[in-house]
Amino acid sequence: MSTWQQVAESKRAQREALIPEAYKVPASSLPAVSTDSVVDFPSKTGILTAREVQITETDDVSVLLAKLASGEYTAVEVLESFIKRTCIAHQLVNPLTEIHFEDARKLAAELDAELKSTGKVRGPLHGLPMSVKDQFQIKGSDSTIGYISYANKPSDSDSVLVEVIKKAGAVPFVKTNLPQTIMYSETSNTLWGTTLNPHNRTLHPGGSSGGEGALVAMKGSPLGVGTDVGGSVRIPAALCGLFGLRPCSHRFPYEGAVNTLLGQITIPSVLGPLSRSLSGLTEFSKAVLAQQPWLLDPQTPSMPWNEERFQQARTQKKLNVGVMWHDGHVKPMPPYERAIKEVLASLGEHDIVDFEPYKTKEAMGILVEAFCADGGKDISESIAPLKEPLGPCLSGIGQKEYTAFEVWQANKRKLAFQKEYLDHWNATARQTKDGRPIDLLIVPGMAYTAIAPGNDIYVAYTGIFNLVDYPAVVLPISKVNPAVDGGATRSGGFLSEDDEKWSKKWDAEKLVNAPVCIQIVGRRYEEEAVLGYAEQVYDAFTAGSKKT
Amino acid sequence: MSTWQQVAESKRAQREALIPEAYKVPASSLPAVSTDSVVDFPSKTGILTAREVQITETDDVSVLLAKLASGEYTAVEVLESFIKRTCIAHQLVNPLTEIHFEDARKLAAELDAELKSTGKVRGPLHGLPMSVKDQFQIKGSDSTIGYISYANKPSDSDSVLVEVIKKAGAVPFVKTNLPQTIMYSETSNTLWGTTLNPHNRTLHPGGSSGGEGALVAMKGSPLGVGTDVGGSVRIPAALCGLFGLRPCSHRFPYEGAVNTLLGQITIPSVLGPLSRSLSGLTEFSKAVLAQQPWLLDPQTPSMPWNEERFQQARTQKKLNVGVMWHDGHVKPMPPYERAIKEVLASLGEHDIVDFEPYKTKEAMGILVEAFCADGGKDISESIAPLKEPLGPCLSGIGQKEYTAFEVWQANKRKLAFQKEYLDHWNATARQTKDGRPIDLLIVPGMAYTAIAPGNDIYVAYTGIFNLVDYPAVVLPISKVNPAVDGGATRSGGFLSEDDEKWSKKWDAEKLVNAPVCIQIVGRRYEEEAVLGYAEQVYDAFTAGSKKT
Repeated sequence: MSTWQQVAESKRAQREALIPEAYKVPASSLPAVSTDSVVDFPSKTGILTAREVQITETDDVSVLLAKLASGEYTAVEVLESFIKRTCIAHQLVNPLTEIHFEDARKLAAELDAELKSTGKVRGPLHGLPMSVKDQFQIKGSDSTIGYISYANKPSDSDSVLVEVIKKAGAVPFVKTNLPQTIMYSETSNTLWGTTLNPHNRTLHPGGSSGGEGALVAMKGSPLGVGTDVGGSVRIPAALCGLFGLRPCSHRFPYEGAVNTLLGQITIPSVLGPLSRSLSGLTEFSKAVLAQQPWLLDPQTPSMPWNEERFQQARTQKKLNVGVMWHDGHVKPMPPYERAIKEVLASLGEHDIVDFEPYKTKEAMGILVEAFCADGGKDISESIAPLKEPLGPCLSGIGQKEYTAFEVWQANKRKLAFQKEYLDHWNATARQTKDGRPIDLLIVPGMAYTAIAPGNDIYVAYTGIFNLVDYPAVVLPISKVNPAVDGGATRSGGFLSEDDEKWSKKWDAEKLVNAPVCIQIVGRRYEEEAVLGYAEQVYDAFTAGSKKT
Repeated sequence: MSTWQQVAESKRAQREALIPEAYKVPASSLPAVSTDSVVDFPSKTGILTAREVQITETDDVSVLLAKLASGEYTAVEVLESFIKRTCIAHQLVNPLTEIHFEDARKLAAELDAELKSTGKVRGPLHGLPMSVKDQFQIKGSDSTIGYISYANKPSDSDSVLVEVIKKAGAVPFVKTNLPQTIMYSETSNTLWGTTLNPHNRTLHPGGSSGGEGALVAMKGSPLGVGTDVGGSVRIPAALCGLFGLRPCSHRFPYEGAVNTLLGQITIPSVLGPLSRSLSGLTEFSKAVLAQQPWLLDPQTPSMPWNEERFQQARTQKKLNVGVMWHDGHVKPMPPYERAIKEVLASLGEHDIVDFEPYKTKEAMGILVEAFCADGGKDISESIAPLKEPLGPCLSGIGQKEYTAFEVWQANKRKLAFQKEYLDHWNATARQTKDGRPIDLLIVPGMAYTAIAPGNDIYVAYTGIFNLVDYPAVVLPISKVNPAVDGGATRSGGFLSEDDEKWSKKWDAEKLVNAPVCIQIVGRRYEEEAVLGYAEQVYDAFTAGSKKT
């Protein structure tokens, strides 16, 4: 039997062998790791043609889909453009796990032939290359999810998500990196190594869907799929300057995604898209729901895309907007307040009220006890076969395992908290001019921006919405600007020890280019509304930015 | 401190005191307990006027609502009619726990005044008296749910369900009996005593919502609300000859309903209506969802009533109908096969295929391990304060408690089973003429009919649909007829020991008048579809019955 080191080395060699030599940059030409962004590096390598650069730099997924549908771009050329850029991105920020270029090329050719012969697209995502987090099974490759012990067990069928996006015409072509156990907000593991943040490679891209965050930010993929149980879609979106959606439990089909802790159903992991355009999130949501995923995933409720609600939210004249400036436990770093103020300044004649943070510390306690209830047994069993090392993770290892009765009591605390939070949201009716509760909530994307590896991460700004199960969209608003955001501005009046710790860590000079994002949060199972509100807010913001 | 006997006696005395003397039948005039139906007895007592008899015998809830809305009946007179009949019913079959006649009278008078002054109904259930299972809190009374230890802790607010039906104009006036722990299919407890089946008082009405079953069958209430975690709405509906609906998890608002095992979220308890008309189920579903219960219950998905789907299902010309004649483990008693054949004979030109039962015994194992995971601790703690006796129940008492890790593994078995069952349903596409899977599934309501108390009950015919979380409607089709259904017809070829046991128990002579029901089952979260299909099937059946 091989050692974990041998297995990992062999897996990495297999991955390397699937990257065409022609798509590699000579090591001597690669930029040194620095605070400089490498997002534009691939287009200067000469590996992509001008047309291929143009294709990969089409951020708006709706535009790309329209050109694919009209035949202006073929699926084959779009795929090859992104393959090239992905290969270069991989040399720079290491986002890949499994590579499916050959399957994807075949599928793209089929799609082109189908469009040519029938005049019709296969589905709403016709010809769109897509990346998926390593959890999603693609027939023929592993889903190791960072466990070396899971290697060399290729899937014999696709996860439902992969099945569904393929039916919709998408072309899955790579799987992406994540932390071992997936219960962590950096993206590093002994099997595949560490993924870096392309905006500033001294920083990490967040996690757990950090491979997606890094690859999509590098324009190696126009649309990626991550998962989120405490922020794992939104954290990499926020740290890599992307749009990201956390939908409510089971809205999109998770069936067949590999994970540990799958039996932990108190706070279910969900899947959601990351993209460089809001249209990427909307096109994904519409396309996935159009395939009636509830016919394939027994957990997915039969809720079709509600176009009426989406349009209503996009165009609603008078919005009641709540703003949670901080969570009552850790104040976000200076650029977040700046970003929210910029957004509000552009918003126009809406009713904007402060949203009181609600029991953040208690909420995080409930989240952690749900994740750690098994005393770490599930994770321990996953690393046992090869005795591989355990990376940093949020797990119950070393803690006393809950009994079933204790799990039930924890579930009750969680349900009670959800009810309290709903009542708290409804109570905003007392603050608004028209006596209606807020329609949407604006909150910082994170407390801190992207940070150097090994610094842990404070996840309450995302985790709270996993606990109450509300949909949330990440919007990229700004970047750290040391001239404006620099210097520790607070010397006292801290909300908590954590608040003081994070405040003292603030060092804008080191965080050049780090993106600053906000979240738009809506009511439960109102993904359409939150996407519509997000569009309205973002359009107002970009229109406002153009004016100034 | 009082003993449990003293507390129980005092609670029963309080209940007795709330029943007006004028609405009581002298003991000497009450019929002796026998196999005879007592459903019509109240109308012969002289306590109800002819008009009140007419009101209470209006089975069709839509008709009653129309007469209340038009002012042909006042809310006050409708309420008093049902109060009278309920009081007599209580003497006969003991369905009541808490009595709210005074609150209800005030509310009914308000509703009449409102209709008179505004010309408008308060909501779609305007003036309809409703009974609710003891779990639902009504401000001012206890929710003991059969635990004497829970007595004398009056609720200070209504459960969300009660809040919602009141907003819709309904008049909750009584709460109804259930077995202690609620984890049992008879309806008896040390606090409130035993509820009987009005069709044959030597039999029990099933459970756990047996108070509702008995009261609605007695026409003491036009519409009742029960809960169902293994069949607890459908079993009393099936055993009392009623229409009943088990919706999918959280579709209707359970928030604020009292229960033990509330932290058990693997297979959640749901609430559903029981009525003497299918219109009762539909009016309830529409009215509850019209109140947007997701604004009050954080578990309820924001899925409004889908009228289009309901109408489509009601009128769909070509149905693919699956029939599961038995569950592969215990064959239902003879009248069920007869009832299904009668229904199919009336159905007309639809495509009817046999539905293979799927791993029933394994399914029941998964159900039981979910319910019993805590080793009975939750129930033990509930009876501890007064050291009250524990009645028969499905609980983990005496079993080894699961660890959190074991709970997680059990959850995974449940999720895997749901996926298998969905694939099994989809695979019926191979059996139908048009290659579509079945639209609906017809299954026996139960294996056995109502039976004498103390016989346990086989619940797999209902429990399987809690496990897979499909909506199911109970339709009353027939009654036991000893001349046709009598005699043990099977002497061998049993499917299992359970099958042999139940078959040998069959004794039609003792089961005179016992109702025989079927279930119509649909896909997950398609309550509208299953109600529409149920209407189509039931209308065809009653039209067919009239012809013969």
